[in-house]
Amino acid sequence: MRATLIYGAGDIRVENVPDPRIHRPTDAVVRVLRSCICGSDLWPYGSREATEHGDRIGHEFLGIVEELGSDVSGLKRGDLVVAPFVWSDNTCDFCAEGLQTSCRHGGFWASQDVDGGQGEAVRVPQAQGTLVKLPVAEDSALLPSLLTLSDVFCTGHHCAVTAGVGPRTTVTVVGDGAVGLSAVLAARRLGAERIILMGRHKGRTDLGRDFGATDVVAERGEEGIERVRELTGGDGTHTVLECVGTLPALHMSVGAVRAGGTISRVGAPQYPEVPFGFPEFASNLTLTGGMAPARAYIEELLPDVLEGRIEPGRVFDRTVDMDGVPEGYRAMADREALKVLVEP
Amino acid sequence: MRATLIYGAGDIRVENVPDPRIHRPTDAVVRVLRSCICGSDLWPYGSREATEHGDRIGHEFLGIVEELGSDVSGLKRGDLVVAPFVWSDNTCDFCAEGLQTSCRHGGFWASQDVDGGQGEAVRVPQAQGTLVKLPVAEDSALLPSLLTLSDVFCTGHHCAVTAGVGPRTTVTVVGDGAVGLSAVLAARRLGAERIILMGRHKGRTDLGRDFGATDVVAERGEEGIERVRELTGGDGTHTVLECVGTLPALHMSVGAVRAGGTISRVGAPQYPEVPFGFPEFASNLTLTGGMAPARAYIEELLPDVLEGRIEPGRVFDRTVDMDGVPEGYRAMADREALKVLVEP
Repeated sequence: MRATLIYGAGDIRVENVPDPRIHRPTDAVVRVLRSCICGSDLWPYGSREATEHGDRIGHEFLGIVEELGSDVSGLKRGDLVVAPFVWSDNTCDFCAEGLQTSCRHGGFWASQDVDGGQGEAVRVPQAQGTLVKLPVAEDSALLPSLLTLSDVFCTGHHCAVTAGVGPRTTVTVVGDGAVGLSAVLAARRLGAERIILMGRHKGRTDLGRDFGATDVVAERGEEGIERVRELTGGDGTHTVLECVGTLPALHMSVGAVRAGGTISRVGAPQYPEVPFGFPEFASNLTLTGGMAPARAYIEELLPDVLEGRIEPGRVFDRTVDMDGVPEGYRAMADREALKVLVEP
Repeated sequence: MRATLIYGAGDIRVENVPDPRIHRPTDAVVRVLRSCICGSDLWPYGSREATEHGDRIGHEFLGIVEELGSDVSGLKRGDLVVAPFVWSDNTCDFCAEGLQTSCRHGGFWASQDVDGGQGEAVRVPQAQGTLVKLPVAEDSALLPSLLTLSDVFCTGHHCAVTAGVGPRTTVTVVGDGAVGLSAVLAARRLGAERIILMGRHKGRTDLGRDFGATDVVAERGEEGIERVRELTGGDGTHTVLECVGTLPALHMSVGAVRAGGTISRVGAPQYPEVPFGFPEFASNLTLTGGMAPARAYIEELLPDVLEGRIEPGRVFDRTVDMDGVPEGYRAMADREALKVLVEP
């Protein structure tokens, strides 16, 4: 089969690799119907050192169960399933608490001998715990939105949930990438009273308005903070959803949050330390968020997608086949594309 | 009257100052029955630059209402009252949310023209919002425990509450000072299943055991972290209550917390940045806490003190009169005394 490999910064190749097979009785093999490129894939794409052997990449996919290990129950060949971006047994104590990203028997896609998601098929470890059956057909128009349950929409939802967004909450979302827009949609779904989206790309912030943003702030840095403060009577918002992962984004978050408020971050941090000293202590600020346990949220979010109440798949603005994956990376890195869908 | 002033590091003096008078109709004047020295007073005591004029100091006291401004209702002369360590109107939106430390019309003791608490009397701004009446007599044996509602026990309680301590929670408390021991007592009161106290001073950790600590870890740094991990099957505890305020204490907290867990800090941070990058993100750690809105908690905690279910005043292990205040500072700074009560 064909799969995507990364050989270094800017060097994405699609190559023939061995077909996945069942290694353990808890495995399944899934033929990929849809995959996609994640903002977090752009970090290695931007900076990874060149290697002679490529590494698999990709961690979001949905597809059809082709084979099942003997220990997997609850699934059958032909089921259409989505995989969260971390695989897990879904039974250990961490999973029971809804923290499948810390599963005692889980792990990451495209790591060690586990396949990446940007390929024609994937061996799925801990298949029974990992995969969630989707009651749609292979040609469903809902596939893009259902694919967002693998990562991007669940990540935005995790950000809003850990921040404590609810009715009467005011929210600032930092970042107009696919995660930021997903966070807007999630905050809206949770009933947020006001959602200020900080972003500079009109096409994206327009989609943010469609998703529920009540205000858009295009300014950045101190100017951006000042603008959010102006919009909130000087106070800032109860919550800030930090969907970028850089230090400037975190600085803006600290500047835009109200005393007693919460900053939740879901952009993978590209910094070792955060500015959270005496002033933030005196204001009783909370810093939370983290790697989203998507698996914990899929069942809860699924009905809203199936019944069309939300359409998170609108973050995809380009579709490529396997040959188009390298170009998809380039387009996302150059901000030509918001999020690229892969149809192998 | 006599009051305590700080002239610089190590230079505490007790001097005659003008008697407090009502400045505004929202003021009261309180004759101080008991005050005390706070661990946070030791920061300026350790490092403040010398000045020619001294500055008032102290922010914990209870006493008798002597005078009332014309706008103060609900209090009368002769009432015995406790003051939280931040004064507030207790009616603004922040106060209504229980964040009196961010009150729109509040402020700090011993700041600008407001008296400090370590004196014979204090002018209390926003007296109606600030002062809480205590139904005891001037000679009550409960005064030390009631005084802890001004700061130290409410601070420990805030730490436990913001960390989310409850039944089935495992807790590590970093620091065996008066705040750390208060946090142990607060965690116990909230039903924590297990409380590991990190501290090296046996007299203090023994009191910690009385307060509810189930385990004591005397080791520090990496060794201390390893010990907490050993005690918790390798996982760490659900919450860590950071009651020191230094970077090494925060490092231990990050090392001792379980994935998905919360670090709450109530020691005033002596650092501008915290190590909270990708590993902490991947583990979904939360950093919370802050300056305790003591005013929000007094009514809730008062019955337990009045009815003797908790005895937070046991943190006081030395009593001085006004003349003894400088020696009280020295004894606390040299760790001879845990917390010093002042009886003017």
